[in-house]
Amino acid sequence: MDKVRKIEDHDLDAIEVGAAILGTGGGGNPYIGKWRCRLQLRQGRRIDVIPLDELDDDALVVSLGGIGAPVVGVEKIEQGEECLRALRAIEQELDCTVDALISSEIGGANSMEPMLTAAQAGIPVVDGDGMGRAFPEMQMTTWSIYGHKSTPAAMADEKNNIVIIREARDERWVETIARANVVAMGAAAGIADAPMRGAFVKKNAIPYTITQALSLGNTVLEAQRNNQNPIQAVIAHENGKLLMTGKIIDLERHLKGGFAVGQLSIEGFGENQGELGQIDLQNEFLVFRRNGQVEVCVPDLIVVLDVDTGLPITTEVLRYGQRIAILALPSHDLLRSPEALAVVGPAAFGYHDVTFNPMERY
Amino acid sequence: MDKVRKIEDHDLDAIEVGAAILGTGGGGNPYIGKWRCRLQLRQGRRIDVIPLDELDDDALVVSLGGIGAPVVGVEKIEQGEECLRALRAIEQELDCTVDALISSEIGGANSMEPMLTAAQAGIPVVDGDGMGRAFPEMQMTTWSIYGHKSTPAAMADEKNNIVIIREARDERWVETIARANVVAMGAAAGIADAPMRGAFVKKNAIPYTITQALSLGNTVLEAQRNNQNPIQAVIAHENGKLLMTGKIIDLERHLKGGFAVGQLSIEGFGENQGELGQIDLQNEFLVFRRNGQVEVCVPDLIVVLDVDTGLPITTEVLRYGQRIAILALPSHDLLRSPEALAVVGPAAFGYHDVTFNPMERY
Repeated sequence: MDKVRKIEDHDLDAIEVGAAILGTGGGGNPYIGKWRCRLQLRQGRRIDVIPLDELDDDALVVSLGGIGAPVVGVEKIEQGEECLRALRAIEQELDCTVDALISSEIGGANSMEPMLTAAQAGIPVVDGDGMGRAFPEMQMTTWSIYGHKSTPAAMADEKNNIVIIREARDERWVETIARANVVAMGAAAGIADAPMRGAFVKKNAIPYTITQALSLGNTVLEAQRNNQNPIQAVIAHENGKLLMTGKIIDLERHLKGGFAVGQLSIEGFGENQGELGQIDLQNEFLVFRRNGQVEVCVPDLIVVLDVDTGLPITTEVLRYGQRIAILALPSHDLLRSPEALAVVGPAAFGYHDVTFNPMERY
Repeated sequence: MDKVRKIEDHDLDAIEVGAAILGTGGGGNPYIGKWRCRLQLRQGRRIDVIPLDELDDDALVVSLGGIGAPVVGVEKIEQGEECLRALRAIEQELDCTVDALISSEIGGANSMEPMLTAAQAGIPVVDGDGMGRAFPEMQMTTWSIYGHKSTPAAMADEKNNIVIIREARDERWVETIARANVVAMGAAAGIADAPMRGAFVKKNAIPYTITQALSLGNTVLEAQRNNQNPIQAVIAHENGKLLMTGKIIDLERHLKGGFAVGQLSIEGFGENQGELGQIDLQNEFLVFRRNGQVEVCVPDLIVVLDVDTGLPITTEVLRYGQRIAILALPSHDLLRSPEALAVVGPAAFGYHDVTFNPMERY
């Protein structure tokens, strides 16, 4: 396993930036997780990232992450071992030893959670994830879309409550039950799914997204250091597209079932003078409209960056008057299949009159 | 085990009436459960009730029942095997075989649930329960009060969702988590607790409450048949007391977190002419006041009967103008200890200025 990448202290800053960009406004802030990972490294523990290809076909891989409301995460800091306890509960439930972890969601805080748990448990984390971005619900992982049964799944909070979702009618019900539990637990918990085999993960993970987040973040940080345009750096790195630059002139945002839901209006400036942009959000940015016409939608990534620093702005810190750049980044093909679009396409978010068109076609 | 009582078809009607009286307004309606039990008997299965004293000290006994909102139970009928699936989930979780069942709550619908599950599983049910009445929450059983740890507890719904509460910070948290899950499951589920040993059950169950419900119900039915006063029959059978007869002149009732909460005002008639009665309710009737003074409160039983038929009126069917008799029945000593009063006394329901005085003292 000489292809294992050992995560270094400074890598964490880059992953933080890259993962936040891939969060498309949601997924929670990776900042606290970064510092927990850093503490692990400074205490002599390791965060080893295995290339997806190097995974044994028979390896038992557990997808895990934090679950909760990002807006609560701002004030209620995790105790730090929620995901580790969830992992141990799965091992106990199935009387097995897990070989490696993988992130359910690279976008946002759950980029860090599996690395933290990996360091705590002394096992590696796989280079990939189940979303390639952030999505609000658990059934929206490629694991669930391509046939993995998440149950038994284990949830743990900071109060030593442990819940096993032993069986569920379908993956949507795992989400429903997990959501009810995390609300009871105080809106922050760790959740670990039933193990997957390495062969399944190799086929169905969004590949190499830790490396992607690291490299993307480094690109932005480097552009900042060299006084280059970080927005152009993101676009070039991700084969993305600049949709609009402008100022937030209206922001409607409310909490609905633990999710931040609302709409953002942007008055274009510069080349976009005279244009009106609109972004619908449900934790993540879902749909971008220009002058009332849908141009980009889920599962493609709609990213909002500060126009000056190039740093991502998440839904919970959006505010009137911010000057932003709106980017579209292509989603992975695993999210664009008919099976995937049924779960993460616009209709899955209630947009029954919006058809997904890959952003490249515009 | 020749002291086992075999429940007969006609016993079920009596248990229904007795259990509804002991429900003190809550606990849900035993009617559907009665018919499910009856169907089991008619299909040749048995409901065997073991005397508490006959239980082996080492027997594994599981307390189970339905959990949900009585007001939902009126419209959403259980599929009928929720508790059986919860029982099987506990057996699987702990790799054990359960010897006998016991009701968590004799008052209301959960008088029938363990008998139904016992018939389905082919094991007996113990003559006793964990409340001797109905209470709204799970930590209010004598098992929880006297030191049994309910976890792991298993919940099952009609959609094949199964959740295990593996560990909880304390018994209050088992309730919190179970409540969140049952709401997600559609407000009706079966729940089975971690097994207890026979020795513990013998010491801590409210004893012989199936026999009590059966005998109480028979007393009422017999009084009705003989044109005697069923209200006096209830009072005599339970060492109770008639608090007031009167007419409901005001009823304030709303749903709060799945519970029916409110207050009932009664204008006395007959011997109580000129008196104003008030009953506070949270699913169950909790506090009775006469002319503003608290006279009876939890854990003692406040029972509302139709003044003409002597049949109990539950909180969800209370209405303006009903002519009722209000009775107080003494609670069992196991509910009157300091440990018990901390969990099921007036303060536990938010009445910090009300002191429990056993009803006999009035």
